[in-house]
Amino acid sequence: MSTLTTTLNAIQPVDQAAMAAAQDRQNNLTKPAGALGLVEDISIQLAGVQRQAKPSIGKPMVVVMAGDHGVTRSGVSAFPAEVTPQMVMNMLFGGAAINVLSKQIGAKTVIVDMGVAAELPDHPQLVNKKIAMGTGDITTEVAMTAAQATAAIEAGIDVINAQDAASFDILITGEMGIGNTTPAAAICAAITGAAPKDIVGRGTGVDDEGLARKQAAVEKALALHKPEADDALDILSTVGGFEIGGLAGAILATVAQGKPVLVDGFISTAAAMLAVLLNPDVQGYLIGGHRSQELGHKIMLDWLQINPLVDLGLRLGEGSGAALAYPIVATACKILSDMATFAEAAVSGKDA
Amino acid sequence: MSTLTTTLNAIQPVDQAAMAAAQDRQNNLTKPAGALGLVEDISIQLAGVQRQAKPSIGKPMVVVMAGDHGVTRSGVSAFPAEVTPQMVMNMLFGGAAINVLSKQIGAKTVIVDMGVAAELPDHPQLVNKKIAMGTGDITTEVAMTAAQATAAIEAGIDVINAQDAASFDILITGEMGIGNTTPAAAICAAITGAAPKDIVGRGTGVDDEGLARKQAAVEKALALHKPEADDALDILSTVGGFEIGGLAGAILATVAQGKPVLVDGFISTAAAMLAVLLNPDVQGYLIGGHRSQELGHKIMLDWLQINPLVDLGLRLGEGSGAALAYPIVATACKILSDMATFAEAAVSGKDA
Repeated sequence: MSTLTTTLNAIQPVDQAAMAAAQDRQNNLTKPAGALGLVEDISIQLAGVQRQAKPSIGKPMVVVMAGDHGVTRSGVSAFPAEVTPQMVMNMLFGGAAINVLSKQIGAKTVIVDMGVAAELPDHPQLVNKKIAMGTGDITTEVAMTAAQATAAIEAGIDVINAQDAASFDILITGEMGIGNTTPAAAICAAITGAAPKDIVGRGTGVDDEGLARKQAAVEKALALHKPEADDALDILSTVGGFEIGGLAGAILATVAQGKPVLVDGFISTAAAMLAVLLNPDVQGYLIGGHRSQELGHKIMLDWLQINPLVDLGLRLGEGSGAALAYPIVATACKILSDMATFAEAAVSGKDA
Repeated sequence: MSTLTTTLNAIQPVDQAAMAAAQDRQNNLTKPAGALGLVEDISIQLAGVQRQAKPSIGKPMVVVMAGDHGVTRSGVSAFPAEVTPQMVMNMLFGGAAINVLSKQIGAKTVIVDMGVAAELPDHPQLVNKKIAMGTGDITTEVAMTAAQATAAIEAGIDVINAQDAASFDILITGEMGIGNTTPAAAICAAITGAAPKDIVGRGTGVDDEGLARKQAAVEKALALHKPEADDALDILSTVGGFEIGGLAGAILATVAQGKPVLVDGFISTAAAMLAVLLNPDVQGYLIGGHRSQELGHKIMLDWLQINPLVDLGLRLGEGSGAALAYPIVATACKILSDMATFAEAAVSGKDA
């Protein structure tokens, strides 16, 4: 069996009995039932993921996948494509936002070259899974072949499975790739059927003309390739990106290990959609990190039925929003396990 | 000079030059300018508060002020008043949500009896500043005398000034007091002129009848006392609460020390409004912790012109929302100080 099939087959639905037990405990903690809102919801979800009534999260791993995009030749980004390898180097030397954020939360960090259009030097923290020197320009050709699409996902699976399983208990997804909000928007349009004008946003800051070029590029790519709405591999191959495929694989492998995934912004969420298309049980393992500034992110979140934890006006990627949200996830578990119940604390309940 | 006057006189406006220097540095870090949204805003604000271009936050202190409310006799709360002392005891024994949250962020925690309607036992972590055994019922009498209002604020100032100044660099406000969303709503109405029906919410969970009683109580209190919209002491005395006055004092004393305040939900925000009425320069030191589920919280936040960091559907108080938001504040400073600039990392900037 292929790596992808094995991984998809290993994914189980979340454990409803553990979730019911966690809900019951939440209702008996010394606070009005539901008064901790999403914090309670997350703790209950994690009970289902970890298949135990008192889940615990404490070992985050940030995986940043990098790739380049032929569509940048259509003028869809505010930054030149050379910034992708430059920012990968910046991450390897610890100067990027995600480095600071990973350190703050004590996360193990893995940087992966999935398809950067430059030769990167060997570095102990860089995992080389380069499929090609950037994707094709989706407005005139496929992003990648069908074989490359499968290879990208399986590379992502391998990145996760190569880690010591005990070294992390939650995956934080991140990415770097100049131009990658364009394929992410195309993926969203292909899956949801929403109009590109309602999805395409300013990314890292294109002006009005750049926004128009970006929207036109997504429309042209969809008209050219007509990807099947329920075929993740077809979508990834025709309008995707290597780092997006890698992230989809990383998500699948993490879920197959029975661990949750804290999803970052627009590009990571597109990858999560592909993972859910490949196995719908993935949905129960996803936690929304943040609400991106990017226009179509709400459409993605609604399709996935996930409610992000923070809304800080971010539009950076790299895993930054998910890393900022991470402490809330860890704390949600502590609330469930460590607070006193009404009976333990001899506190009176709500008036009948 | 009185403690209150001395404190008010010690408050300085935030440092605009430090804020400009921080803004300049943010614009040169290796990310699109503004891509970290509120995280950037907070780092710049903290530069102004700490009067340095690279602020640092790492020693949070949670102060939970507790008090009881005569207005509970009007049936405004879902929980009986006896829960206030019970929850204070729960906090002293470490079983409440705020205990778990404080521990997660490594915060020093101070619990203060400002006016609980029960004799509480001596405990090394309990500060006794009891003004009275609960307030008067604001629907028929003043909450407290003018002298008690000043005493409550000065008690809050004393709580802060009694701490080793080096032991904390940010205050997280918290409170416990069955019925205290009612005086908080009355304070908001008195200051902003907004209608009680647009402010009064369900607190910890009153039903429709309870909500109607609560709204009627606020309307009756305002009609009876007609507090002056710009007179914090009059408002506190007529429709306030001892823990709310104590928090206003704690905020003033923290700001007078040149330190920021991370404001929790509906009751804490009412206290922050009183502090700003007493000295408008306080506003620059306030960071909004979370957006409460309580109806009128948005009106308060708009009046204060602060934008909360998280929106998790919380309606607990105790300082819980601010404690959950705290890691974002600490991280905002690290981003500003530790990220590389474009020049340092040799990363290309945005296309001209």
